[in-house]
Amino acid sequence: MTERNISIEAADRTAVEDQQVEIVERKGIGHPDSISDGIAESVSRALSNLYLDRVGKVLHYNTDETQLVAGEAAPAFGGGEVVEPIYLLIVGRATKKYDGERLPVDSVALEAARDYLNEHIPELEFGTDIVVDVKLGEGSGDLQDVFGEESVQVPMANDTSFGVGHAPLTETEEIVLNVERELNSTYADENPHLGPDVKVMGKREGDEIDITVAAAMIDSYVADIQEYKEAVASVEEFAGEVARGYTDREVNVAVNTADDYDEGSIYLTVTGTSAEQGDDGSVGRGNRANGLITPNRPMSMEATSGKNPVNHIGKIYNLLSTDIAETVVDEVDGIRDLQIRLLSQIGRPIDEPHVADAKIVTDEGVVLSDIEADVEAIVDDRLANVTDITRQAIDGDLTTF
Amino acid sequence: MTERNISIEAADRTAVEDQQVEIVERKGIGHPDSISDGIAESVSRALSNLYLDRVGKVLHYNTDETQLVAGEAAPAFGGGEVVEPIYLLIVGRATKKYDGERLPVDSVALEAARDYLNEHIPELEFGTDIVVDVKLGEGSGDLQDVFGEESVQVPMANDTSFGVGHAPLTETEEIVLNVERELNSTYADENPHLGPDVKVMGKREGDEIDITVAAAMIDSYVADIQEYKEAVASVEEFAGEVARGYTDREVNVAVNTADDYDEGSIYLTVTGTSAEQGDDGSVGRGNRANGLITPNRPMSMEATSGKNPVNHIGKIYNLLSTDIAETVVDEVDGIRDLQIRLLSQIGRPIDEPHVADAKIVTDEGVVLSDIEADVEAIVDDRLANVTDITRQAIDGDLTTF
Amino acid sequence: MTERNISIEAADRTAVEDQQVEIVERKGIGHPDSISDGIAESVSRALSNLYLDRVGKVLHYNTDETQLVAGEAAPAFGGGEVVEPIYLLIVGRATKKYDGERLPVDSVALEAARDYLNEHIPELEFGTDIVVDVKLGEGSGDLQDVFGEESVQVPMANDTSFGVGHAPLTETEEIVLNVERELNSTYADENPHLGPDVKVMGKREGDEIDITVAAAMIDSYVADIQEYKEAVASVEEFAGEVARGYTDREVNVAVNTADDYDEGSIYLTVTGTSAEQGDDGSVGRGNRANGLITPNRPMSMEATSGKNPVNHIGKIYNLLSTDIAETVVDEVDGIRDLQIRLLSQIGRPIDEPHVADAKIVTDEGVVLSDIEADVEAIVDDRLANVTDITRQAIDGDLTTF
Amino acid sequence: MTERNISIEAADRTAVEDQQVEIVERKGIGHPDSISDGIAESVSRALSNLYLDRVGKVLHYNTDETQLVAGEAAPAFGGGEVVEPIYLLIVGRATKKYDGERLPVDSVALEAARDYLNEHIPELEFGTDIVVDVKLGEGSGDLQDVFGEESVQVPMANDTSFGVGHAPLTETEEIVLNVERELNSTYADENPHLGPDVKVMGKREGDEIDITVAAAMIDSYVADIQEYKEAVASVEEFAGEVARGYTDREVNVAVNTADDYDEGSIYLTVTGTSAEQGDDGSVGRGNRANGLITPNRPMSMEATSGKNPVNHIGKIYNLLSTDIAETVVDEVDGIRDLQIRLLSQIGRPIDEPHVADAKIVTDEGVVLSDIEADVEAIVDDRLANVTDITRQAIDGDLTTF
Repeated sequence: MTERNISIEAADRTAVEDQQVEIVERKGIGHPDSISDGIAESVSRALSNLYLDRVGKVLHYNTDETQLVAGEAAPAFGGGEVVEPIYLLIVGRATKKYDGERLPVDSVALEAARDYLNEHIPELEFGTDIVVDVKLGEGSGDLQDVFGEESVQVPMANDTSFGVGHAPLTETEEIVLNVERELNSTYADENPHLGPDVKVMGKREGDEIDITVAAAMIDSYVADIQEYKEAVASVEEFAGEVARGYTDREVNVAVNTADDYDEGSIYLTVTGTSAEQGDDGSVGRGNRANGLITPNRPMSMEATSGKNPVNHIGKIYNLLSTDIAETVVDEVDGIRDLQIRLLSQIGRPIDEPHVADAKIVTDEGVVLSDIEADVEAIVDDRLANVTDITRQAIDGDLTTF
Repeated sequence: MTERNISIEAADRTAVEDQQVEIVERKGIGHPDSISDGIAESVSRALSNLYLDRVGKVLHYNTDETQLVAGEAAPAFGGGEVVEPIYLLIVGRATKKYDGERLPVDSVALEAARDYLNEHIPELEFGTDIVVDVKLGEGSGDLQDVFGEESVQVPMANDTSFGVGHAPLTETEEIVLNVERELNSTYADENPHLGPDVKVMGKREGDEIDITVAAAMIDSYVADIQEYKEAVASVEEFAGEVARGYTDREVNVAVNTADDYDEGSIYLTVTGTSAEQGDDGSVGRGNRANGLITPNRPMSMEATSGKNPVNHIGKIYNLLSTDIAETVVDEVDGIRDLQIRLLSQIGRPIDEPHVADAKIVTDEGVVLSDIEADVEAIVDDRLANVTDITRQAIDGDLTTF
Repeated sequence: MTERNISIEAADRTAVEDQQVEIVERKGIGHPDSISDGIAESVSRALSNLYLDRVGKVLHYNTDETQLVAGEAAPAFGGGEVVEPIYLLIVGRATKKYDGERLPVDSVALEAARDYLNEHIPELEFGTDIVVDVKLGEGSGDLQDVFGEESVQVPMANDTSFGVGHAPLTETEEIVLNVERELNSTYADENPHLGPDVKVMGKREGDEIDITVAAAMIDSYVADIQEYKEAVASVEEFAGEVARGYTDREVNVAVNTADDYDEGSIYLTVTGTSAEQGDDGSVGRGNRANGLITPNRPMSMEATSGKNPVNHIGKIYNLLSTDIAETVVDEVDGIRDLQIRLLSQIGRPIDEPHVADAKIVTDEGVVLSDIEADVEAIVDDRLANVTDITRQAIDGDLTTF
Repeated sequence: MTERNISIEAADRTAVEDQQVEIVERKGIGHPDSISDGIAESVSRALSNLYLDRVGKVLHYNTDETQLVAGEAAPAFGGGEVVEPIYLLIVGRATKKYDGERLPVDSVALEAARDYLNEHIPELEFGTDIVVDVKLGEGSGDLQDVFGEESVQVPMANDTSFGVGHAPLTETEEIVLNVERELNSTYADENPHLGPDVKVMGKREGDEIDITVAAAMIDSYVADIQEYKEAVASVEEFAGEVARGYTDREVNVAVNTADDYDEGSIYLTVTGTSAEQGDDGSVGRGNRANGLITPNRPMSMEATSGKNPVNHIGKIYNLLSTDIAETVVDEVDGIRDLQIRLLSQIGRPIDEPHVADAKIVTDEGVVLSDIEADVEAIVDDRLANVTDITRQAIDGDLTTF
């Protein structure tokens, strides 16, 4: 035990990579839950920046509760239409008045949502395909000066909160994460028929990996059923290539398995997201802070997106534990599976957690004691620089879902 | 009495122009009540056109209930900001399904509102300065085929409804109407400091006319208090010129009389409408169908804006009676004051009203019997062509507020 | 002219009672527009009382913008159900903080709406048949101390506003007003099949008066079509009796004329109001301050319900002019038709109007000059006691619709 | 491997009871997230029963997205008040029309919410302290007949979904679960000062268990700070007694640790829930299906509350895996730690999962092979009777949070 209560120990279990059955899921950027996460986080960043601009420090706020109510759409080859708009309600608390000045938090929140949607769900017309409203209750302006332009303090923990991070990703995790990311960037840039609502499910049994992709196609870029089938085949081929870049195991890819051509039931959308037709969404219901849902690993229930990155310990510890795990694995060789867990201590600065434990499965031939000191040094250093996490979150350098 | 129950008689009162005290008011295009009227009517037109496009006839709808909830703003010389967005709820009924097809009435309503606002209140950012939501209950699709692409029938009256129109406008009425219109077109085109929320009140006592203008100035075009004073003076001068074009009576113009320079209380806005700061609005609370509020004349309480122009008798009769009055006065000389009143007869086609009476004050030296036949012929003709009103309303050729 | 600018003159027109055609309408207590008026006014009274209780004076507020969005219902003989609840939004401004204390204006507004609905539309289940929400923007707390527990001042006019009142009511007006009131009290107490949404339209041509009643029947008290027909006949008989108590003219009464028994289309409701099925409503769209819509008489467009009775001149002048007219006619004999008009003067106390004119049609054989002094004395006295109106409005002793 | 793909194996890890650090949390019934869960599930049950009553089978719906927006309150010793009501939006899909009949899903949802709140958060006045609104999009009525009054089929899996359950609970888990339950029943029945928003956090390090309780006190039952302190002490004593009934380890209990008596900052509420003051909530953000948040164990991200229990595999598998784990441990001796995991197979009946694996840590001296057959038989039997889960969920016999 160090001053920061850092503990390094061998994991009492097999590495996830070596377990018999592994399940991994990622809800892509256009999934209704991810849209909620994305807007909540971009509203949070916008408010942080508003406060820094106007009063020189981040005031009290929390915007981790966006609710999306699905619309109804009538997709059609060549281009259909939204018939009932999506409704999205931004929920949270924010400081609206400081030093006698009114702060335009509602307008800023709406602008952040608009900009986020325009960038990430471009086929969705803001204000007509989706109505965005906002209910931000008044928070108090009396947050201590912990994160300002001129000075930054380490905040105190006022709650027992918990964060957990893992590294390295398993092959299946890498595949699930990167299939979605590559589809939504490299592939989509060239293939406008692919909408951002790409859900990827990975299942590994032994050495066989099944990747199931649900990909929302955009009707205005798909002329007929033949083009639709080609689009599905093209996504399948691309996903397979990405996947095989991360593993030598056998990989099977299936796309839009719920389609039923006989019944004319296919995954065709007007806007590229299932939010247009019956799929509601909200914050914290999808991906964890590392972008994945990993039932094989301990997860925090805490919603990371939208929380105030200055003083919300749950958010900071989730991001920090992930960051520590990744840094350790980057810098220290011989680790097959690493879990970092941080538990706050009420009334202490958050760089002095109650527990900071690293559970390690080493590579064959590596002894824990050989790397223990290196790991501890990194954990100690990252904890010491905990406020970097706040800065990065505000700057948008960390993803939260 | 004719078949159409047309009655022409002398008015049992003095012409409004000759009454001792006259009061006239107009809420300009940017007033919260007028914004509500304008959106309700543009939503109505958009739905009529949607139905004509999709199913060849106008289906059942009614959108005469827009509610605007004011926002909060922090105007400042050189440019302030909206801090709490305006909320606007489009309310009504519309047919959402016809012959198995879903009709995008909500999306179309939102688009109509967006387009209307962008055109008429351009400084108001749709979706961030104002949140527009929609609640259109489901109407039935079984309206008889009264107004379609291929055939048009005269609808039956199913209610006792009443419309009233007047002509010619008195000098004071002309002044109030045209001061607002000229300010919001000729003047505003050259002077961006003037916002669309221009309210004009006219009061005539004997031969003295007082015109009071409340004009919302737009802060980004006003650098300081000096420029504000110049803007006020400039509006005053312009309004005076317009007014004096309609009368030889004495005219006094006062602009923004509630300003208090000592207390720094002036009519400065961010967006050009008082809806940004505390002034709510709704349909049917402001101008009547002829664009004016005229307590010296009988008025219909019926909201004209937003109603279905195919079968809403109140709307049709208000527009038609105004149209008849104007036509008569255009074509028949010697009329000092004319009031046309239409009263429907349940169960009869609306071109056969229960009462269609014209009350006339003739010019000195003119005898009613000399013009009676001409007046009656025009009333008869306009009634016979009642469906023209529907067409013009759908095409936007008639103003409703 | 007196100090209060009181002017008494002969009307330049025939008494309404003697005009050839007269139209009068009243939307009963359960009509969607009246529900909106009633809630707006009861919220207003509740806020006045809240402020008086908590801070000893009425603070700034205005709640004259309730919007009702109709629901959908499935009435059935013996008892049906609401399938889509009504939505009602209370809109306005209110002072939420005073001297550091938070004032529960939103909760109080909701309670007022609940209590009002429970009393007047008892079959409507609050919270499930109707969802009531509230959006009260923040008003400023800096209203001058004009109406408090300990001192009451006459407020200044800050706007050009106008009120108009009439007395006595014509026979047709008396009939329309009292048919609704008696149906909704005496009759309904004994006959639970009658809902509060009773709309009465009166039309007089010469000496023949047609009364048309639209009466919402409540399905749980109507077992079958036979009972429905009996209920209609019973309402018709009752209304006829009431009507004939006010006139010797010929009276024809028709109830639920839009019913079509062949098509099974009757006016049957679950809750006693058409708001349950497609009829939206909002404040200021129905009855004027005297409870009637009277196109034969000058009317103010100003919504009276929901406005702040301390300082809203439009409300005060509408109530006061009606009160003056009624008092004059009560106390002075020989008046066949009286119109009182009040016009405010910006910057002057509201008991010193710019114009206070009485236009009188005397009874045959009565000369205006004989009663002029009496009338003027009453007008002067009522103006002097203008703050009584505020008190009575707060206490609920004045109806506003 | 059996036909149902049941696999029984030794866990590759230490029993949670024997791990060095264990963290467990439970958000009590009155926590904003739990309120959302509770309403979502009660709405779900109400809709299931509505459909069974009206059409004899459960139609398509999903109501797993309730959003709670916190209010503002002014608690005070002896009784304060809610100043800004809580807003709660019920979100989801439901079939509104079947065989031509309208089904009152919105009204039924609101009634379910009202009844739930009245029962579980009795100090919260429905409709005034909390505004409940509903947005249920239209679902299709064409669900196959899988769960009706007369016949019940096992539904097909149409998605890859995952459920996980555990038994027996560790001592810390038992304590956390039962401290909350006992406080909210036995204790609260006798002590009205305790509100339902009781959050319990358990942390075990080695053999020392720290229990932290955050308990919302209800102001109307607390006269002053002395009574508040007594209430806190009383909760602490009671919780300690409950806790020590489940363990021989050392137990420390702390209640309302964030209180600061010097600053007058205590956990006093008007209604017994922090939702009244700034704490938002939504479905699926709190407890898992077994009532706990257990970062030491694999958890499903799937929200269980509000989902359709007939055909939502995620819900069924979460409830079923928990049920299986508990049944196995009840009936088979020698198990120290059991995890049941179910993974669906697209296109197969849900009683034939892709994977049904049991991972077991046996008690010292027990060999897995001795109990394997018994475990497998139970798993097989419960899977065969999977539709019992649906029945129990509809009847409210299973808790979901």
